[in-house]
Amino acid sequence: MKAPWVSIESFPLHLGEEVVVKGWLANKRSSGKVAFLIVRDGTGFAQATGAVGEFFTRSELKEMAKVPLQSSIILQGVVRKDDRAPGGYELALSHFQVVAEAEDYPIQNKEHSVEFLLENRHLWLRSQKPHAVLRIRNQVIMGLHQFLQENGFTLIDPPILTPAACEGTTTLFELDYFDLGKAYLSQSGQLYMEAAASAFGKVYCLAPTFRAEKSKTRRHLTEFWMLEPEAAFFDWQDNMELQEQLVSFVVGRILDSCQEELATLERDLTPLTKIKTPFPRISYEQAIEILKAKGFSAEWGDDFGGDEETAISEEFDRPVFIHHYPAQIKAFYMQPDPDDTRLVLNDDLIAPEGYGEIIGGSQRIHDYQLLKNKLEENNLPLEAFQWYLDLRKFGTCPHSGFGLGIERMVAWISGIHHIREAIPFPRQIYRIYP
Amino acid sequence: MKAPWVSIESFPLHLGEEVVVKGWLANKRSSGKVAFLIVRDGTGFAQATGAVGEFFTRSELKEMAKVPLQSSIILQGVVRKDDRAPGGYELALSHFQVVAEAEDYPIQNKEHSVEFLLENRHLWLRSQKPHAVLRIRNQVIMGLHQFLQENGFTLIDPPILTPAACEGTTTLFELDYFDLGKAYLSQSGQLYMEAAASAFGKVYCLAPTFRAEKSKTRRHLTEFWMLEPEAAFFDWQDNMELQEQLVSFVVGRILDSCQEELATLERDLTPLTKIKTPFPRISYEQAIEILKAKGFSAEWGDDFGGDEETAISEEFDRPVFIHHYPAQIKAFYMQPDPDDTRLVLNDDLIAPEGYGEIIGGSQRIHDYQLLKNKLEENNLPLEAFQWYLDLRKFGTCPHSGFGLGIERMVAWISGIHHIREAIPFPRQIYRIYP
Repeated sequence: MKAPWVSIESFPLHLGEEVVVKGWLANKRSSGKVAFLIVRDGTGFAQATGAVGEFFTRSELKEMAKVPLQSSIILQGVVRKDDRAPGGYELALSHFQVVAEAEDYPIQNKEHSVEFLLENRHLWLRSQKPHAVLRIRNQVIMGLHQFLQENGFTLIDPPILTPAACEGTTTLFELDYFDLGKAYLSQSGQLYMEAAASAFGKVYCLAPTFRAEKSKTRRHLTEFWMLEPEAAFFDWQDNMELQEQLVSFVVGRILDSCQEELATLERDLTPLTKIKTPFPRISYEQAIEILKAKGFSAEWGDDFGGDEETAISEEFDRPVFIHHYPAQIKAFYMQPDPDDTRLVLNDDLIAPEGYGEIIGGSQRIHDYQLLKNKLEENNLPLEAFQWYLDLRKFGTCPHSGFGLGIERMVAWISGIHHIREAIPFPRQIYRIYP
Repeated sequence: MKAPWVSIESFPLHLGEEVVVKGWLANKRSSGKVAFLIVRDGTGFAQATGAVGEFFTRSELKEMAKVPLQSSIILQGVVRKDDRAPGGYELALSHFQVVAEAEDYPIQNKEHSVEFLLENRHLWLRSQKPHAVLRIRNQVIMGLHQFLQENGFTLIDPPILTPAACEGTTTLFELDYFDLGKAYLSQSGQLYMEAAASAFGKVYCLAPTFRAEKSKTRRHLTEFWMLEPEAAFFDWQDNMELQEQLVSFVVGRILDSCQEELATLERDLTPLTKIKTPFPRISYEQAIEILKAKGFSAEWGDDFGGDEETAISEEFDRPVFIHHYPAQIKAFYMQPDPDDTRLVLNDDLIAPEGYGEIIGGSQRIHDYQLLKNKLEENNLPLEAFQWYLDLRKFGTCPHSGFGLGIERMVAWISGIHHIREAIPFPRQIYRIYP
């Protein structure tokens, strides 16, 4: 076939042209004289129509109608506008070639259990909804890069193999590292980003992180991707401004660039169009009051679970910052509030619609002695953290940063229930295949 | 200080304006009446000049001259053009504030051992050369994303925790995974990209990969980042075209956007300006001939080491493809050459100037039975690879892809000798700190 190979996504640019499409047969029906094929090529789904006449005999059309679903095919034809066709365009076929016939495809057009679908994730990716979610994920990640790069942040990849834990020691994956003893899979790149912020000013990483947590909730994975910006000379309020700008930028980008994917997912767009700065800010204490008023038995010092986060988020039409948590329920490195050292200068950003925490951020302790005390209080090995303490010896400054969970962000924007569907190959405590 | 906080990088946009800079004291000298400070803020280095007069008394200037190097400082002043100043601009100081004085800084303006510098990598990042290399790394990575996104590739993150080895089983990091037995750190995302290519057409990942290799060469790390594009319906020649376009695009972007960094590294730009498509292509057999003519004892079936790669690359002024290697020295998944099944449809891309292999790519086996045979020949567990075999059952098609080593690419473009300096926090068999 001699016509140019184009993507289905680009059909609007090729109206009236003869083009080649390479893809897979996603669906089909036939009226005897006309075969309607739905072809997918990874960029979209399109209808291709073959008719008895100039290009196909009746028996060729019969053969075409027999080709099994998911077979790889190459088509040639003219791109035509057709409002009745899915996507609004169709390909009027002149050539049809089967590259390889598929065997009986395990995923049928019926209800399958999620377990079955996850076991077949390598195939399930081809279905319309997973495909749409991961196209949104691609745009979310590129949007995060774009915003941070345009705002002077440098991407600094963190190490994954680390000599010590960053948050808690009970949820670490450990492995043998040659003659150096144990190494641990990173739970966060933050500490390394703090070092990099003293060298590059504003930095971020976007990397896999690991938690050997036995949680089975819809918000947990053992392996997930996290965006972690860190900025020197940023205080906790600068930090929140950065977060709301970043989140609203990315949501805006998805509304612009992923209309088809959002439609496939039947995502209600109304809540997303409301995601504009500034986001509301409430203190931890105010959050406790909201919960009490709603009948929760919340007391000062409690951490919030999914239900509490959902109840709070229902009070607002956009993400809400909760700041000034009690130090006792937060990580050792957070800067105490100078006005009330029981509290820290942190924030959690809670997504609307019950999607829970998508960001956790804070100003970091920049005083050497205070940080050393905190490490000791938390029984963390000073030796492994010496380099981290060093940062407070040589030109320390107030600095802040945050971690944004990619899968939680994607699940929220896509409107899907469980974050395992927001990552291509999810890892859970009972799943490491495929 | 009330003036706007700006980056040193943006000085050309603020000529004649009063601005604030927040950063660290990188160097200083004083003539008694004038203090010349070199300040760095992560985006660049600039000279700031304080003079006895309107803004500073003689004793204030004396104090200023005593501030230790690497102290965090906030400056205010007017941006002026000064061709004698490093970078071409200087800040005429009106305010000077020390945020935190640094203790005696371990990295002095003298020769340190690389071991010492790597042990202090968290501080060494602040020095001009490491800073320049990692700014180039940032631009390389963003250039790779940009090219691939503009060419219709979707970013699909691969899993890091995997149930089986992709290449060789002797160099795997293994760990306990709950009740599921052993898990292994990914050596490559390729197999997963092949699954994704059947769903998205053209995909790529950019993720950390791990090899528990005991190699101590300047081209090896135990943890490194790899770009792995994969495209359905691409044959081995399409694959090479994609590679040369990608590499020449990124080199062009670096020449445009990192002039200052390349100058800091004293990188000879002449070889980089020659990196234009098409790149030369030679067969493995031709490569053997070149080596023999240069006095190497190379025989058909030998793999090439660093010396051989350098000798071959010296014959060309741009990266060179070597294709059609013997199957016996390449990975199990490579498509045999239909004209000579002793060979595979692969390519290695060898960088100029002795930087060795930066890309390894191939067309993949798309036939079910052939792939199954290869897995068995290589004693790989069929069960763990069932999902990978599945891809050949349900709409298989010719497809190709490659792996590009980020650190090798950055080392080459930056002109640095050892790839450990091309990653922020290198991991080697004897190094996991900081």
